[in-house]
Amino acid sequence: MIDNVTVIGSGRVGSAVRSRLAERGVAVGDDLVLLCVPDSAIAEVAASVPAGPWVAHVSGATPLAALDPHVRRFSVHPLQTFDRSGDPSQLDGAWGAVTAEDEAAHDVALWLAETLGLQPFDLADDARTLYHAGAVFVSNYLVTLHRAAALLFAAAGAPVEALEPLVQHTIDTGYELTGPIARGDWATVERHLAAIGERAPQLDHLYETLAGATLALAT
Amino acid sequence: MIDNVTVIGSGRVGSAVRSRLAERGVAVGDDLVLLCVPDSAIAEVAASVPAGPWVAHVSGATPLAALDPHVRRFSVHPLQTFDRSGDPSQLDGAWGAVTAEDEAAHDVALWLAETLGLQPFDLADDARTLYHAGAVFVSNYLVTLHRAAALLFAAAGAPVEALEPLVQHTIDTGYELTGPIARGDWATVERHLAAIGERAPQLDHLYETLAGATLALAT
Repeated sequence: MIDNVTVIGSGRVGSAVRSRLAERGVAVGDDLVLLCVPDSAIAEVAASVPAGPWVAHVSGATPLAALDPHVRRFSVHPLQTFDRSGDPSQLDGAWGAVTAEDEAAHDVALWLAETLGLQPFDLADDARTLYHAGAVFVSNYLVTLHRAAALLFAAAGAPVEALEPLVQHTIDTGYELTGPIARGDWATVERHLAAIGERAPQLDHLYETLAGATLALAT
Repeated sequence: MIDNVTVIGSGRVGSAVRSRLAERGVAVGDDLVLLCVPDSAIAEVAASVPAGPWVAHVSGATPLAALDPHVRRFSVHPLQTFDRSGDPSQLDGAWGAVTAEDEAAHDVALWLAETLGLQPFDLADDARTLYHAGAVFVSNYLVTLHRAAALLFAAAGAPVEALEPLVQHTIDTGYELTGPIARGDWATVERHLAAIGERAPQLDHLYETLAGATLALAT
């Protein structure tokens, strides 16, 4: 179906993707031009690719229209955070959001997802932005929660590494809500807010907004 | 030092602690009375315990003064989220915050932490609330982020289980910030907010507050 692929872009995703394709014996060439460039550059780079080959992007939030004027097009978004190593094992086990407008494009997209080592699932073009916002919550915003907690632990004189078993068990127990909000213990929540207000006031709005959301999303 | 312990309370923590003490051959008795009751009940239950034995609590946010009038007192807080199973292996690998006012109390607290299987660290009595607020960020609020993401994935028609490798790799890469905010890609952030406003408006304040905090905490 596809014998060779040209990857454009050498960032976190592009370098891991290029390594994985090489590892799987896929040659460099123009059957498929795969854009691993920043979202804001996709339209311009796509417009510069001569018509003919398959053209695809790996962005989570960008619609297929950014690949205009190409019609042999699709997207596979690796749902993962990547470091700068280019290590292709970062793709292993991750899921891949596949968006395609016809069966031929879908077939090529599935081939790419599977060649990369991703577990593919179909995603509607007009749902991509909402989906990508969801990914931001559990990845980028988890980083933010960890930084907030590390700041409070440092202020309290507690070792930051003590957070790790807590984070891991929160995941391993299936994200069950425990703690003061689950218990309806608003006195403790108020004392948290007072302590944060005194020692780390830059976090009080964040704590309070998350407390409200926790209550609203509790089932 | 301590031959026997009475655990008061049969909630998530109390049942795991009781199982662990039995597993380690610690008999039931009054050398130490260990209060595993809700924060709001600690003072009342402590006041009902006859003076004499060691008295301790396992609360993260409650100061030692809640154990008045006892003076042979301390606290060990297991920094972990517990399910209702009472499975003592939940204590394994977790850290334990030790607060004690003198050397004798500190010795007993360390004995308890180590008997429970916790990695002990010292925590000042007046830093407990700040410390506990930090723990809430990475445990309770991680649950909230996951619920927010699951809601957006469901609205987008994406499989919720696809979030798991992303969460895990975010931890395994040491909480490095990637994604649109790390790239300064505010156009994508604006498109996220527009999509959330249209399809899941109950999350728009949360997304925006977290975006601001992410920028403020980026280093």
